[in-house]
Amino acid sequence: MIVVLAGGVGAAKFLQGFSRVLEREDLVVVANTGDDLELFGLHISPDLDTIMYALAGLVDQDRGWGLKDDASNFLSMMNKYGLDTWFRIGDKDLATHVLRTSLLRKGLTLSEVTERLCSALEVEHRILPMTNDPVRTKVETSEGTLDFQEYFVKREFQLDVRGVIFEGSDSARPNPDVLEAIDESRGIVFAPSNPIVSIGCILSIERIRDAIRRSKAKKVAISPLIGGKAIRGPADKMMSGLGLEQSSLGVASIYRDLVNTFIIDDEDRQLAGPIERLGMRVVVANTLIKTLDSKMKLGEIVLGELAE
Amino acid sequence: MIVVLAGGVGAAKFLQGFSRVLEREDLVVVANTGDDLELFGLHISPDLDTIMYALAGLVDQDRGWGLKDDASNFLSMMNKYGLDTWFRIGDKDLATHVLRTSLLRKGLTLSEVTERLCSALEVEHRILPMTNDPVRTKVETSEGTLDFQEYFVKREFQLDVRGVIFEGSDSARPNPDVLEAIDESRGIVFAPSNPIVSIGCILSIERIRDAIRRSKAKKVAISPLIGGKAIRGPADKMMSGLGLEQSSLGVASIYRDLVNTFIIDDEDRQLAGPIERLGMRVVVANTLIKTLDSKMKLGEIVLGELAE
Repeated sequence: MIVVLAGGVGAAKFLQGFSRVLEREDLVVVANTGDDLELFGLHISPDLDTIMYALAGLVDQDRGWGLKDDASNFLSMMNKYGLDTWFRIGDKDLATHVLRTSLLRKGLTLSEVTERLCSALEVEHRILPMTNDPVRTKVETSEGTLDFQEYFVKREFQLDVRGVIFEGSDSARPNPDVLEAIDESRGIVFAPSNPIVSIGCILSIERIRDAIRRSKAKKVAISPLIGGKAIRGPADKMMSGLGLEQSSLGVASIYRDLVNTFIIDDEDRQLAGPIERLGMRVVVANTLIKTLDSKMKLGEIVLGELAE
Repeated sequence: MIVVLAGGVGAAKFLQGFSRVLEREDLVVVANTGDDLELFGLHISPDLDTIMYALAGLVDQDRGWGLKDDASNFLSMMNKYGLDTWFRIGDKDLATHVLRTSLLRKGLTLSEVTERLCSALEVEHRILPMTNDPVRTKVETSEGTLDFQEYFVKREFQLDVRGVIFEGSDSARPNPDVLEAIDESRGIVFAPSNPIVSIGCILSIERIRDAIRRSKAKKVAISPLIGGKAIRGPADKMMSGLGLEQSSLGVASIYRDLVNTFIIDDEDRQLAGPIERLGMRVVVANTLIKTLDSKMKLGEIVLGELAE
């Protein structure tokens, strides 16, 4: 069994390739739920959805998130009702939120709901929310403390970041299936996701972090930065805002003591030495995975490292 | 002030004309909520919606219900999730249900929610749910007791009707604004809606029925049957199933002691005598109101009767 710690779009792209090169091996994805939000009374889990849609072959490839061939009639009507519609929800996508919300209200856990949705969409691999308890990522900015989605989507991550809080993560119990998967895994992969708010949020649950640290499995991380820039999203800005080095070396420092192998992009090959000095093996590869072919190639490399 | 007791499509068509011939007079629509349902955790009020959409100029004219230019991406995805999608919800339409549900969960009454939705859609006239308490119409059929929508939409009203139950109507408190409107009105109109489940459900709330009976206002009813057939929906079948005469005379008997004037279609002119013998004034007119012109003409006739 291989466990992948995952955020949203970056992880989903990686998983589209990785899931294809795994031959009949169990893949368990542990997804961040700190970006979850309640909107119009609906429980939305953006990272769970992005990964589920990607593994179901239904994701909108251009955006990297949401469902393909979707429309926004619902939002246009919400707009007519005078509601703020900065968070983009597609009409088909809405089915996921409505169904999840209704099942949660019936008393199912987020994990049970995810399993049911995945099964209906014929997703072969398991996707586990990191916890069934509420954890909400907040971003301290120059304009006050904002919910993550407010900072990320509404304000388009243009505000200076001064701090990040994972509200609820101290008391959140890890999803027991996550601990079990980590214990049984022969490899743990840190997907090319935001190390602060995506992977960082998963690791903020101490028992998950401890289980990973204790695990004898091979641990491989893929840097989400290339040339100091995030391929997508605010990872670079957040890192510099928090006083961390805005580069793959900075990401490697965050994962220090947690991973054995760190994969950086060809463009960052000059960082190999400094990262090795943190005690990691470094692999240089193409991490800008736009095509299925390049996604599968990166997947093969990760698989090779786990087998070492 | 004029009060119109209303069900769904038939009432909405009438109101499209009636609202246009009223010159600056207050129109208050009292809508049936017995057809309401909870689906996918959403509170749906079909009659309130149909009337609101019609008065907002947004109704789909062909179907007579739902929003024009709507789509069904949401339902197609719900279908993919394996859910039964016999109840048709449009993508834009869904905004109404999601917003209503979220406002109800916040503690607003159905009446307050309706007012807020209507105001956002710039509906000039007041639409009042008959009650803010749950009343659910059940239909006793040859295949057991069904929720109204299950009988009406899912089973396309093909089952024999043996009885109708307005669950909760004994304990439901009338919407206080309804009683106030009835007390202050100079005219009460029974829209051409199903006399059993639409108008009948409103009248099943005893204090509303009493207020109407006691009112000194002129009371005018429009028959929803032409030549013994319902223009739309199951009124005719339900009446015969319940042992009532399946004709405008049968409808008139139901409204006996409640209305002064009964309007029947030209085609039913031979029923004028028998209906008059029930103690009502009878007006013969075109009640098959497909065009705006014919809707307004019928509206003028009703207005004339109220002025008598």
